[in-house]
Amino acid sequence: MQTPRTIHWIGDSSGFVRLIDQTLLPTALQYRDCRTAEEVWEAIRSLRVRGAPAIGIAAAMGVVVGLQGYVVGGRDVFLARLDEVCAYLRTSRPTAVNLFWALDRMQRRARELAALSPREILDGLLHEALTIEEEDRRMCRSIGEAGADLIRDGSGVLTHCNAGGLATADYGTALAVIFAASEKGRRFVVYADETRPLLQGARLTAWELKQRGINVTLICDSMAAQVMKEGRVQAVVVGADRIAANGDTANKIGTYGVALLARAHDIPFYVAAPSSTFDLNLPTGDAIPIEQRDPREVTHGFGTQTAPDGIHVYNPAFDVTPHELITALITEKGLIQPVDAANIRRVLPLDVGERGL
Amino acid sequence: MQTPRTIHWIGDSSGFVRLIDQTLLPTALQYRDCRTAEEVWEAIRSLRVRGAPAIGIAAAMGVVVGLQGYVVGGRDVFLARLDEVCAYLRTSRPTAVNLFWALDRMQRRARELAALSPREILDGLLHEALTIEEEDRRMCRSIGEAGADLIRDGSGVLTHCNAGGLATADYGTALAVIFAASEKGRRFVVYADETRPLLQGARLTAWELKQRGINVTLICDSMAAQVMKEGRVQAVVVGADRIAANGDTANKIGTYGVALLARAHDIPFYVAAPSSTFDLNLPTGDAIPIEQRDPREVTHGFGTQTAPDGIHVYNPAFDVTPHELITALITEKGLIQPVDAANIRRVLPLDVGERGL
Repeated sequence: MQTPRTIHWIGDSSGFVRLIDQTLLPTALQYRDCRTAEEVWEAIRSLRVRGAPAIGIAAAMGVVVGLQGYVVGGRDVFLARLDEVCAYLRTSRPTAVNLFWALDRMQRRARELAALSPREILDGLLHEALTIEEEDRRMCRSIGEAGADLIRDGSGVLTHCNAGGLATADYGTALAVIFAASEKGRRFVVYADETRPLLQGARLTAWELKQRGINVTLICDSMAAQVMKEGRVQAVVVGADRIAANGDTANKIGTYGVALLARAHDIPFYVAAPSSTFDLNLPTGDAIPIEQRDPREVTHGFGTQTAPDGIHVYNPAFDVTPHELITALITEKGLIQPVDAANIRRVLPLDVGERGL
Repeated sequence: MQTPRTIHWIGDSSGFVRLIDQTLLPTALQYRDCRTAEEVWEAIRSLRVRGAPAIGIAAAMGVVVGLQGYVVGGRDVFLARLDEVCAYLRTSRPTAVNLFWALDRMQRRARELAALSPREILDGLLHEALTIEEEDRRMCRSIGEAGADLIRDGSGVLTHCNAGGLATADYGTALAVIFAASEKGRRFVVYADETRPLLQGARLTAWELKQRGINVTLICDSMAAQVMKEGRVQAVVVGADRIAANGDTANKIGTYGVALLARAHDIPFYVAAPSSTFDLNLPTGDAIPIEQRDPREVTHGFGTQTAPDGIHVYNPAFDVTPHELITALITEKGLIQPVDAANIRRVLPLDVGERGL
């Protein structure tokens, strides 16, 4: 069974974005239509759409809806609006490099088409957004293919957060590896960290894996060490939001801890991500800004107040896993192992990861 | 400001147990009166009262309420009922050694008093339960005193779960160390892991610390590694449910992971526990049974369904931290450091930890 489409475009360049409202999963599968840049911004900000590649696609499509009202004005007004929409959408999530990458790509495409009419530019921008989506779809398959053999028959695999079909156009990055291994006939168990505070593991990863018939067991984040100690895990596979030139990887809060626990138990730790997630202008992960999110995600995360009134909360959205803790990077261009700046440069073309900056 | 009394006895030996219903904290402070052994069993089972020392006190008082209807029968019936009540209360929580310790102590006391009338034995048993409570109160103060100097001025302290006043008769074990350091004028920040699935850190520890004016910041369990990496933590202090002869420590799920993370960041990791928590008949932690709890704690923990229908869940209540990861044990008899069987034997009297078995 296939997971429903995370995000897609309905109609021609006068159409709109349709996306699964992931905040309602797993108890309701409901689509949300975004017909303005503001609605796309809000969907990204509120994590109705999340996951670095899916955010990039949403933002690219958001540029198109944000420009629809401007095709009848002149070209200068249209192009000024383009920059405005892109600058605005950039503010929706500070960490996901794919967001900036996709918006830069849309702006570059508009410049290439600048001699055309606004309507023709808009058509070209929709085509570019759909190309980003299609490339993402192929990327997921390539990542799955590159990583499938890392999952051994009869093994256990732990993942954190959701780097699945819901985070991409197709079947994910970390989960692509799992799906591809399953399609090759491997049998294994996936342990899904629930991933506090927003429970993407419980709500999304567990749901996706179950939908596709993968044997999945849900655990709390605090149980990962025990599951490893019991010998139940032979590999960890996670996604990434941003990878520095040396391989340091920003991903959902808790990833760094899981990497340390994997190291302590001699379990390989893999990061699966497309080349668009690499930010080769960042020499290391030290400069990656860590988004701080609303304390209420921790204190009122489930509609119920679970902490005292007025309590201080520290709620970083991401952490950075040093490259030394990463056994290999799994990209659509192949495996990068060991993880260091030279190997990353060798596997990724020179322009990759710099296009967005 | 003092935390309200976790558990106490109301009246003479015809009275009853009054305890804070901890499942309702932090939004409601409500007492629950237990007038039967079944009500005490349920309170322990449902974690209305939790924490190894508090469970021991509740169980001891539960023996008294369980015998109240039997003072008018003969002595043999009374003593048979005693054994029945103790066997029953033993089934409420499998891991907490203090439960067994307290019940054994009550049975031993009854045998010492066996020549008296059932009413006199009952009075003696109430006295024994109140003595356990009073000893626990003194124990908390002694643990605080023993550990206070481990908390440095200007530092950060991380704790997991709740080993505070709500887990004991007075001001806790791990939190006793924190309270005692605060009373000595030290200024520091406590990072409280929320402690999934039941959020004892968010609901209880954060509440208790705030009540007593301690500077506390709540984090998700998955954030501990990042908080350590940022240099915010100079010591970890946790409680224990059962400690083997070599120092291996069973405590709330997630403790073992925190110990590994502390080791990776060169942060001292302390376990604070009374001698009644030691089980010197267990050579190592390998034989400690790990209680498995209801999957709904993970999937429906906040009144909201947060995972797909029918998902597999692994929900161990405890894990075991190997003694090598523990910098020191903080007991009412003083510090045990380094943590090994010989040092434990040296600090604890020979009978301690064997009384219960």
